[in-house]
Amino acid sequence: MTTVAAYAAPAAKAPLERTTIERRAVGEFDVLIDIKFAGICHSDIHQAREGWGEAIFPMVPGHEIAGIVSEVGPGVTRFEVGDRVGVGCMVDSCRECENCKAGLEQYCVKGNVGTYNALDKNGEPTYGGYSEKIVVDENYTVRIPDGLSLDVAAPLLCAGITTYSPLRHWNAGPGKKVAVLGMGGLGHMGVKIAHALGAEVTVLSQSLRKKDDGLKLGADHYYATSDPKTFEELRGTFDIILSTVSAPLDFGAILSLLRTDGALVNVGAPEEPISLNLFSVIGGRKSLSGSGIGGIQETQEMLDFCAEHGLGAEIELISASEINDAYERVLSSDVRYRFVIDTATI
Amino acid sequence: MTTVAAYAAPAAKAPLERTTIERRAVGEFDVLIDIKFAGICHSDIHQAREGWGEAIFPMVPGHEIAGIVSEVGPGVTRFEVGDRVGVGCMVDSCRECENCKAGLEQYCVKGNVGTYNALDKNGEPTYGGYSEKIVVDENYTVRIPDGLSLDVAAPLLCAGITTYSPLRHWNAGPGKKVAVLGMGGLGHMGVKIAHALGAEVTVLSQSLRKKDDGLKLGADHYYATSDPKTFEELRGTFDIILSTVSAPLDFGAILSLLRTDGALVNVGAPEEPISLNLFSVIGGRKSLSGSGIGGIQETQEMLDFCAEHGLGAEIELISASEINDAYERVLSSDVRYRFVIDTATI
Repeated sequence: MTTVAAYAAPAAKAPLERTTIERRAVGEFDVLIDIKFAGICHSDIHQAREGWGEAIFPMVPGHEIAGIVSEVGPGVTRFEVGDRVGVGCMVDSCRECENCKAGLEQYCVKGNVGTYNALDKNGEPTYGGYSEKIVVDENYTVRIPDGLSLDVAAPLLCAGITTYSPLRHWNAGPGKKVAVLGMGGLGHMGVKIAHALGAEVTVLSQSLRKKDDGLKLGADHYYATSDPKTFEELRGTFDIILSTVSAPLDFGAILSLLRTDGALVNVGAPEEPISLNLFSVIGGRKSLSGSGIGGIQETQEMLDFCAEHGLGAEIELISASEINDAYERVLSSDVRYRFVIDTATI
Repeated sequence: MTTVAAYAAPAAKAPLERTTIERRAVGEFDVLIDIKFAGICHSDIHQAREGWGEAIFPMVPGHEIAGIVSEVGPGVTRFEVGDRVGVGCMVDSCRECENCKAGLEQYCVKGNVGTYNALDKNGEPTYGGYSEKIVVDENYTVRIPDGLSLDVAAPLLCAGITTYSPLRHWNAGPGKKVAVLGMGGLGHMGVKIAHALGAEVTVLSQSLRKKDDGLKLGADHYYATSDPKTFEELRGTFDIILSTVSAPLDFGAILSLLRTDGALVNVGAPEEPISLNLFSVIGGRKSLSGSGIGGIQETQEMLDFCAEHGLGAEIELISASEINDAYERVLSSDVRYRFVIDTATI
């Protein structure tokens, strides 16, 4: 066991504060990671405030982790001390179900073990990346290619894979028209990745406030959803709409922007159930789908892809003492485009 | 113009009554069809009672039409007098959009022309199959193979194609587990067709009342959705769930029965918007989709498939005077499994 400093929410909706937690001893197949950077994901806030249901406290959020291996267990074959590594939204899964065997650990039939706000196989709570160190099984650890700085790589572990996986699964690429709904942490990575995959990319954002950024990041077009004309002009346009929004939306209006056989893929999730008229999908054989992060192998593939194409997140680096302020700014969409905690400041 | 007898709803929610309507003169590419049988589809009732929005009255419902060609226009090349033919849910479309050109006339970008409760290209209201004769462009007319009796073929023009098209599109076949939700007019055809396609078929019906029928029609398994154990036992089972239900459902519970990457395809449509928690599709990368009838060429393919496999609808033949009673029985799910009007009784 190692005692490490961390930032934790002591209870639902309480501000995060500095504390210490215990990390398990490095097991046979474990790596000990000195965390260098941890991204702040909107879902950290959902969970720390119990917006997605009952949670485990104290909670150390953080599932966008980049760091350096500082110790390896005797059975570890894939990593060495000094390696640049990342950890995303899960740190374990059953490894036996058809999904785990197919590299779809995120959809583990028994449920994967979340990087925080979960219980590991020993029944111990997991603690995330807002901390100095973490111990993770090497099979749930990925390599950060040399071409990517650790700070801009951290958000890829959630925002990157969450957008990459569905864009690949729904075949975003040359000849495809992809809309990215929402221009935040997930959305800005969706734009970069969809563009790098060769798709024609449109941003659908509430306003045109971030238009210049969107075009710079690779969008071909940029529209405001607050303008009713957007829905007239773009009716029946897109093969794929990737919704990164976790606020309530008019899903009928969004679906009307899809062409026949188009897919609206949700990677953001409102806390409340949505309302949907099924004629919105029957007309045009459309689908409303969802996607959650990605598998471990696919996460590695995403990092390699991002390194190859020079894609990192756009970040605002903050110190740990700024976490609570950062949460408020995330909630008011006031971040371009991901807060990343410099964990040396914890 | 020809005056023909028909059954029409004079106003929303008024009982249907005998009347006469005018059919247009047979144009260059038209066929005049002596209607022999017309199926009663649940959507006839939705429309006649304005459950799906404002409608055109008087309304002659009926889009499951089987009959014999009695006259052809000078430009007609595909049909001759005496041919056995069918007409489904649409009688025209723009013929120029990408969907029409791709044989997806049902998703015509400009909207197809419904067989009834629609305006044709001349702005005249269309009247459906509860009538003695109909005049239809040959391109929207299909051939009923000799192996199929006209009475059991009539319902295929809607119930058959509405289930065949999505089952084919979502690749129902050997190795696939398909659930058919609802064991009514659409559902019973879904069971027959999914079985003939080689899938493992499960019926999910409110009760086990029609279980014997379901197994006879080709289902491998039959479960009651009123039994909570059904949802425990079948969790994560199906590749495809074809929902033929137009009553409100617990969509979260239904989606939980899909395996990873499974599709819930709706061909029934509740009149009210549904409520859905997006986590139901994010977990397992599932989709909630819809499908509307099928294209003209695909409708012909479906009829040929049904003839080859000896699949007709299970019907209760009624006289025209029984239409209003039949509507009430459809609403209380008291029909096995499709009412078909013998139009000689109009």
